[in-house]
Amino acid sequence: MSFERGELIREGKSKQVFGVAGSDDKVILHYKDDATAFNGKKFGVVEDKARVNAAISWHLMQYVAKETGIRTHLIERLSDTDQLCEKVDIIMVEVVVRNIVAGSCARRFGREEGEVLPFPMIEWFYKSDPLDDPPMSDVHALTFGWAEQHELEYLRFAAAKVNKALCDFWDALGVDLVDFKIEFGRTPDGRILLADEISPDGCRLWEKGTRRKLDKDVFRRDLGDLGDTYRELYTRIFGNELGA
Amino acid sequence: MSFERGELIREGKSKQVFGVAGSDDKVILHYKDDATAFNGKKFGVVEDKARVNAAISWHLMQYVAKETGIRTHLIERLSDTDQLCEKVDIIMVEVVVRNIVAGSCARRFGREEGEVLPFPMIEWFYKSDPLDDPPMSDVHALTFGWAEQHELEYLRFAAAKVNKALCDFWDALGVDLVDFKIEFGRTPDGRILLADEISPDGCRLWEKGTRRKLDKDVFRRDLGDLGDTYRELYTRIFGNELGA
Repeated sequence: MSFERGELIREGKSKQVFGVAGSDDKVILHYKDDATAFNGKKFGVVEDKARVNAAISWHLMQYVAKETGIRTHLIERLSDTDQLCEKVDIIMVEVVVRNIVAGSCARRFGREEGEVLPFPMIEWFYKSDPLDDPPMSDVHALTFGWAEQHELEYLRFAAAKVNKALCDFWDALGVDLVDFKIEFGRTPDGRILLADEISPDGCRLWEKGTRRKLDKDVFRRDLGDLGDTYRELYTRIFGNELGA
Repeated sequence: MSFERGELIREGKSKQVFGVAGSDDKVILHYKDDATAFNGKKFGVVEDKARVNAAISWHLMQYVAKETGIRTHLIERLSDTDQLCEKVDIIMVEVVVRNIVAGSCARRFGREEGEVLPFPMIEWFYKSDPLDDPPMSDVHALTFGWAEQHELEYLRFAAAKVNKALCDFWDALGVDLVDFKIEFGRTPDGRILLADEISPDGCRLWEKGTRRKLDKDVFRRDLGDLGDTYRELYTRIFGNELGA
């Protein structure tokens, strides 16, 4: 069976979501080469970014599903940059897991970047571009109707398991998983799926020992060429270089 | 027994905390006429503010203690502006309870000011002037050592009870309690006491029906003379006008 892009449903900062012709329960996730930071205030186009992120996200999502039993929205790879997925209603709670203090956690709470946390820290952010994804607590999600209590409990449980699996994965490649962001979605029949992507766009990855940054901070902080960084990550994971 | 001010222990934005000569477990809270907003970026001196806040805080703290059984740090009124209190180690978790959306809650989450919440919302803020009191969740307090889990549970329990008592109090005076901030402290022997103050400096109070502001927003938003507002509140509570 072949799947063709239908109408554009949503345009995000790094991906487009298309409907699927003749289907109302599937979507096609299309990765873009666009790089943004600070909620879109900084913008660039990075060669190969779409292909690397799509490949890494596909690989990590499959790995996490296998290691943890947590279900994802992925169905099939359609091309280097397009993935067929179950259509979900995205839960407006962005889930951030931190193993080491960096970024907004350091800034907000006056902590040293690099502080190793005694246990993984799970944070919620309200998914809202106009509001710059503000941090929030359970009570905000519950009060404003963004998630139910049992959903938050599942998100916390799932996030901890995903973190454990991803830490092991990156550890074996000589990389520390500093933090990452994941999103979940609801299916019409009431399942909660790990959705969106797991890629270096939404993770902080530091080379063990040197703490050299292997993630989008290279772009955010002008530390080098993000394309080179992403191709290096690709090679670390898959053993071979990204093809032309 | 008389108590004399010892050394200045701490200077806050609206109060000074002095030691007590010959005692190491008591302090004197001295209220100032200084008004600040936006974490000190706006400053003014408001006549009678110290006397009104001290009187209202004393009255509300005693009322709350009587209604709820929650213990406070207050021991004795020494003057119009000075209160003898138990010396506590302030818990760095500022507790905000909201009944109606206003202020930072409206701004952060894009909600309409005036939205009545379906149940009281209890929020934590990390008490830090240099960091502008950032909002936080349980996990930050636990991870960074600002409070223990059982303390957070007690704070939530106590905050809900204080809110219920204060809502009843203001309701009887024709005023809606929109939100308020309270702080707690630990005694050396392990008790947790309601500390700091409960005054219109740390509450939002709206006249029922008109929604006219009867709190520090009058100063924050240049809506009139804060001294007049505070003296009006004094009269609402105590029946008589504030003396000269």
